[in-house]
Amino acid sequence: MDIFAESLEFHRKLKGKLSIESRSHIKDRHDLSLLYTPGVAESCKAIHRSPEEARALTIKSNTVAVVTDGSAVLGLGNIGPLAALPVMEGKCVLFKEYAGLNAFPICLDTQNTIEIINTVRNLAPVFAGINLEDISAPRCFEIEAGLQDIGIPVFHDDQHGTAIVLLAGLINAARLAGKELTDLRVVINGSGAAGTAIAELLLCVGHDPNLCKPVKEVLMCDTKGIISRNRTDIESNPAKMKLSRITNRNNRDGSLADAIEDADVFIGVSVEGALTQEMVRKMNDPIIFALANPVPEILPDLAYEAGAFVVGTGRSDFANQINNVLAFPGVFKGAIEVQAPRITGAMKIAAATALAEHVKEPNKDHIIPSVLDKSAGEAVARAVAEAYRKAPDA
Amino acid sequence: MDIFAESLEFHRKLKGKLSIESRSHIKDRHDLSLLYTPGVAESCKAIHRSPEEARALTIKSNTVAVVTDGSAVLGLGNIGPLAALPVMEGKCVLFKEYAGLNAFPICLDTQNTIEIINTVRNLAPVFAGINLEDISAPRCFEIEAGLQDIGIPVFHDDQHGTAIVLLAGLINAARLAGKELTDLRVVINGSGAAGTAIAELLLCVGHDPNLCKPVKEVLMCDTKGIISRNRTDIESNPAKMKLSRITNRNNRDGSLADAIEDADVFIGVSVEGALTQEMVRKMNDPIIFALANPVPEILPDLAYEAGAFVVGTGRSDFANQINNVLAFPGVFKGAIEVQAPRITGAMKIAAATALAEHVKEPNKDHIIPSVLDKSAGEAVARAVAEAYRKAPDA
Repeated sequence: MDIFAESLEFHRKLKGKLSIESRSHIKDRHDLSLLYTPGVAESCKAIHRSPEEARALTIKSNTVAVVTDGSAVLGLGNIGPLAALPVMEGKCVLFKEYAGLNAFPICLDTQNTIEIINTVRNLAPVFAGINLEDISAPRCFEIEAGLQDIGIPVFHDDQHGTAIVLLAGLINAARLAGKELTDLRVVINGSGAAGTAIAELLLCVGHDPNLCKPVKEVLMCDTKGIISRNRTDIESNPAKMKLSRITNRNNRDGSLADAIEDADVFIGVSVEGALTQEMVRKMNDPIIFALANPVPEILPDLAYEAGAFVVGTGRSDFANQINNVLAFPGVFKGAIEVQAPRITGAMKIAAATALAEHVKEPNKDHIIPSVLDKSAGEAVARAVAEAYRKAPDA
Repeated sequence: MDIFAESLEFHRKLKGKLSIESRSHIKDRHDLSLLYTPGVAESCKAIHRSPEEARALTIKSNTVAVVTDGSAVLGLGNIGPLAALPVMEGKCVLFKEYAGLNAFPICLDTQNTIEIINTVRNLAPVFAGINLEDISAPRCFEIEAGLQDIGIPVFHDDQHGTAIVLLAGLINAARLAGKELTDLRVVINGSGAAGTAIAELLLCVGHDPNLCKPVKEVLMCDTKGIISRNRTDIESNPAKMKLSRITNRNNRDGSLADAIEDADVFIGVSVEGALTQEMVRKMNDPIIFALANPVPEILPDLAYEAGAFVVGTGRSDFANQINNVLAFPGVFKGAIEVQAPRITGAMKIAAATALAEHVKEPNKDHIIPSVLDKSAGEAVARAVAEAYRKAPDA
């Protein structure tokens, strides 16, 4: 039986991967009076007087909402909120298994940006954080931006989780190659949620310049080639217009093959086979992250054959798996511990740095912790909490 | 230490009465592939093809949302969504302990009727049922009505849970008194959510006439006296206008003291001390439900002294406690088992009847099961499921 049939059977047997358990049981009237009426009124009154008491008396202490509209689920596309639920439940399992946090799936029956923002605002009281998930670009940018003032962290994992783990891998890859991050010329193929967040993180966009050193250059490609300020076809897409301003310092035009010449780093968040051996040969000690799933932009053996220095993918069956599970549990755990109202740039960089340092002796097959290394989340959480304490507004 | 201080300390120690647990753990890459990517895609595709598969593959099989806006919490009033959370968590505990259902608290940061309706509609995909809780009248009526078409049961427990348990108690009380339900003259003091639902259930409003026999008469009182069709002060309140049409057949005016004359049943969902001994003396073999909390409309010993036949209250320290926990867990369990799209009148009557019959040998101190009798929920669930199977649209 293949993994897909086996997984379907596993899901059919469980009928739900989560269970909401009571942490206290009812054996007598006294138990009922303690956890429900009349005793519970005292906790209500305490929170009514001092809202911050909710973090001391309720599940707001440690519960995250995993929110989707089902518009960009895995490689399946816009399958809607109901069909997205198995993925969101899985994500909630990861929150528990990797960070000990409660997480509950919220699959919204709307794909209207404003309505999603309003709905999440209405839901916020119960939660300590909001993990946005599998929402298509460019709506994901607007939704995340529209929720930054709600007093709890709102984090679109497809963007920032990917960007953090990628940066961690890049830190170790560059170290192995003897290169400084600030000298790297980077090409990103794919300008969706993940590509955009990676570009912004590598370029320190929105980051405190004292805490972030940008790479030398980022060229961003979409299916039409390099995103430049000459591209009239992107004028109706504010996200790509912004990319054209923050990347591509010399305003170059051309194809991916043109962009890749002499680049140090290729980051693919695009499609199977997008990177050829010929392109790899034009690079400079190539560091390659080929994250397309299930089949990467180039297979590792072909990349190495063409001269790659180090290769990472999204796949568990190759070395150097770039997997968000290394970031989001620890990011939320750390942010919730210090009650940060949002995830700052400094917290993201701290998370990436901690993840890179968590690999004690990096080598070409081990630039990033294993997805099974649950202690990585703890390291990320500590770093994120510390970053917030040091610079709450950075 | 009193129960309030003890409960506060209990809540402070737990920091949340619920825990969201994973029903499967991650020990190796295979586990990760089964419950998350890539295997999970197969369940997504199955649901995308056949939406009903969500009930077979996800927590939609058995998860209820407990939804409030914090506008009418216990006896505390409009304390808002955050301060309502300890009560909602407690309610979720009861769902688990009494029916084995997952329940998650949703405390909405809005008290706008339309916005609440839209938000709950947006949330519906994940859930098998919606328990509305502690939402003030008359908004609770509009919200519940506005959600009856979403394909899963939406049940305002403060209304219908109370009405079901009350009817169960009344069935046994009338039996003990040797009276037929259809001969009873009933006075209800308090015309909020619970009082309205009790009146409608006792009068079979919206019920199939083949499945429900109305009591002889209901007079409804608010703070101004009997609700009649002469009352100009209720014209702006559609809920009370409706009550004036469905109750008070002879369109009487007067005070509670006038209404109570020769009544068989007093039902108080009002305030401490509203029923005097003098009033009880005017009744006919008085059956009294004095449900005000924490202090009832009349204390049982005073009622018995004035000639009451049987007395029920909302309190756990007197006999005959009318407590919603006897109804809502079983109602949802039964409805979810048969995938009923709503809670019909027939299901409510079946629940009340099953609850009455669950008391093997009723007596004046035992007209309703104990709140600690968890088997009552199972009896209710069976009856509700059976009622739906027999008459899905009744």
